[in-house]
Amino acid sequence: MNPIQWQIQATDGNARAGTITTRRSVIETPVFMPVGTQGTVKGVRFEWLENELDARIILGNTYHLFLRPGPDTIRQMGGLHSFTSWDRSLLTDSGGFQVFSLTDLRKLTEEGVEFRSHLDGSKKFLSPEVSMEIQAALGSEIVMAFDECPPGDAGHERTRASLELTARWAQRSKDRFFDLQAAGMDAGLKDGFRQSLFGIIQGAGHLDLRRESLDRTVQIGFDGYAIGGLSVGEEKSVMYEVLDFITPQMPTGAPRYLMGVGTPEDLIEAVSCGVDMFDCVIPTRNGRTGSAFTSRGKLNIRNAKFIRDDSALDPECDCSVCGRYSLGYLRHLYQAGEMTASMMISHHNLAFFLSTMRKAREAIKASSFQDFRREFLSKLSQNDGKGV
Amino acid sequence: MNPIQWQIQATDGNARAGTITTRRSVIETPVFMPVGTQGTVKGVRFEWLENELDARIILGNTYHLFLRPGPDTIRQMGGLHSFTSWDRSLLTDSGGFQVFSLTDLRKLTEEGVEFRSHLDGSKKFLSPEVSMEIQAALGSEIVMAFDECPPGDAGHERTRASLELTARWAQRSKDRFFDLQAAGMDAGLKDGFRQSLFGIIQGAGHLDLRRESLDRTVQIGFDGYAIGGLSVGEEKSVMYEVLDFITPQMPTGAPRYLMGVGTPEDLIEAVSCGVDMFDCVIPTRNGRTGSAFTSRGKLNIRNAKFIRDDSALDPECDCSVCGRYSLGYLRHLYQAGEMTASMMISHHNLAFFLSTMRKAREAIKASSFQDFRREFLSKLSQNDGKGV
Repeated sequence: MNPIQWQIQATDGNARAGTITTRRSVIETPVFMPVGTQGTVKGVRFEWLENELDARIILGNTYHLFLRPGPDTIRQMGGLHSFTSWDRSLLTDSGGFQVFSLTDLRKLTEEGVEFRSHLDGSKKFLSPEVSMEIQAALGSEIVMAFDECPPGDAGHERTRASLELTARWAQRSKDRFFDLQAAGMDAGLKDGFRQSLFGIIQGAGHLDLRRESLDRTVQIGFDGYAIGGLSVGEEKSVMYEVLDFITPQMPTGAPRYLMGVGTPEDLIEAVSCGVDMFDCVIPTRNGRTGSAFTSRGKLNIRNAKFIRDDSALDPECDCSVCGRYSLGYLRHLYQAGEMTASMMISHHNLAFFLSTMRKAREAIKASSFQDFRREFLSKLSQNDGKGV
Repeated sequence: MNPIQWQIQATDGNARAGTITTRRSVIETPVFMPVGTQGTVKGVRFEWLENELDARIILGNTYHLFLRPGPDTIRQMGGLHSFTSWDRSLLTDSGGFQVFSLTDLRKLTEEGVEFRSHLDGSKKFLSPEVSMEIQAALGSEIVMAFDECPPGDAGHERTRASLELTARWAQRSKDRFFDLQAAGMDAGLKDGFRQSLFGIIQGAGHLDLRRESLDRTVQIGFDGYAIGGLSVGEEKSVMYEVLDFITPQMPTGAPRYLMGVGTPEDLIEAVSCGVDMFDCVIPTRNGRTGSAFTSRGKLNIRNAKFIRDDSALDPECDCSVCGRYSLGYLRHLYQAGEMTASMMISHHNLAFFLSTMRKAREAIKASSFQDFRREFLSKLSQNDGKGV
């Protein structure tokens, strides 16, 4: 049985509105997936994600969960769903991206990558096979192939070498993935549906290499396709150029996932190119530093002008934070070092990202996506240069 | 009109089950009041306090709110209810206790106390009059008189001098309080009901002075009476001796409030003596350090034996944390430094304190309080000495 069913409900230009049906939930796209690095979304309880924000899928992080509490513990606790009690869909990354961020700590070979744990300095090893084994123990609905992610400014030769390695690792990922499924090692098995496996397109800012990476990944064949290696330090124009070039060439019959991106502008631009899925830490990371995303752009809660402001973070937002709490109160909580400030700004930011995707979806279905995009981006720039 | 209506539904020995009806909520006693020091209960959103935990009253802290954001800001935002959006009852302390905890920072005179802000070192002044003015700006349902709290081990002479000062300050508090009510300075006015004012009994561990303080406080006359100066470093036996002695002598026709106390054992012992109201920071403070209160005693979430434990913090607790999350998962979140660990253990601890008071209330109404007390305390000691 197909582990995910991908259906397109509407297209508008390159933009697509669809549904991904997994063994655990129906995901309406375009979709923003909140990041639950260590098995929890920072500062936001699952109850809010389910009941109010209605997130149908969240991420788990293979690198972090590998180190703590470890795949053996999670497997023994029945997989990541059972361990965390999150019973909707999970996507797990491969761990590669985090390891390659530890530049000083790794030794890369054809076989895989050796690194030292950032927690205790102990030696660890990740490879396509190990990543697949961990992700089987996590039991996520969407498993990511183990790839190498070169720096955003890598030259042509370095990038080509990297994508060749990524292609070989993609095949090894797929081989090991299916062995594990056949051996019943998927801890998240439900109703006989296996995990799904997504391949990753690399190639940095080199369009010819992006195309080559796409071809090689599709040739191996996956349940969905991701664009990796963007928003890793390159110019924004490079990212948009790559998205514009590669997304419409990706298979229409599978979901398209832009990894680790990005701002609300980035999301809308990528949807316009035909991307269906996103994840990014910024709603919760910025929430913890008092930075709110709103329909009129970013807002810094520390700004003294908010001291006695009784309006909402975003008067156009219908989340439980904006419906109840004032800027002045949230600023007070932030200045006073109260955890509830981080919790509530993170909550609002996630609400904004999720509802932006829902509005994009409605616009695509109504064939008015380009109008929506223009208005959304224009409104978003209203706070620019106002020192907020 | 009486600002609070106090009704006794049942008594069992000295223990009482009653209701305090304020302009904003009906409070069933015995009651534990969660502490919202800076206008928020640390780590627990109001929505949980209202919808699940059903707290009918929480505390606000005059010292902290005086310094930040300041009474002018809160008054301009419509009072503490309007500023925070908490629309049930509020009790505000007088600020005295915090100031007297700043031993090196204060200068005490008959007029009041001068101190330096712990935030920026600026000079501040609190007196009965200033405290009443701040609490009027906060607009709480229950205002506390401004008292001096001597150290728990203060000698007889020092304690007598302190209670005499407290008595003079109580009268000044009352005078200024009624001037402010008459002048329409209560920011929380609702349906014509004024704030209520509680007097505080001091006297440290000296029973004769406790009695004298009680008499003088009752002579001035208040809407309710509090026992201050306990759980401030004295032996636990001293606290129980004082409670045993003074509580039954307090007016039956008004609520009795034991300030800043305490552990679940302390609460049950004090209810047995006839106390109706409690507040304490330990459910949330301990929650943030991974210490959980359960029906079988305290539990330290860091304990390695919980790594793969799939049972609840407290299998007898019906809160949303215990109904869903395992010890193993909560331990993982705590060890990983995730905010959700603090949030959820604080949440459970509050649920445990509030439900313990509800069970005590039911037992009093069923004339089985002593049985309840014996079983509760016996069960509570089950984890003792087990290294949890």
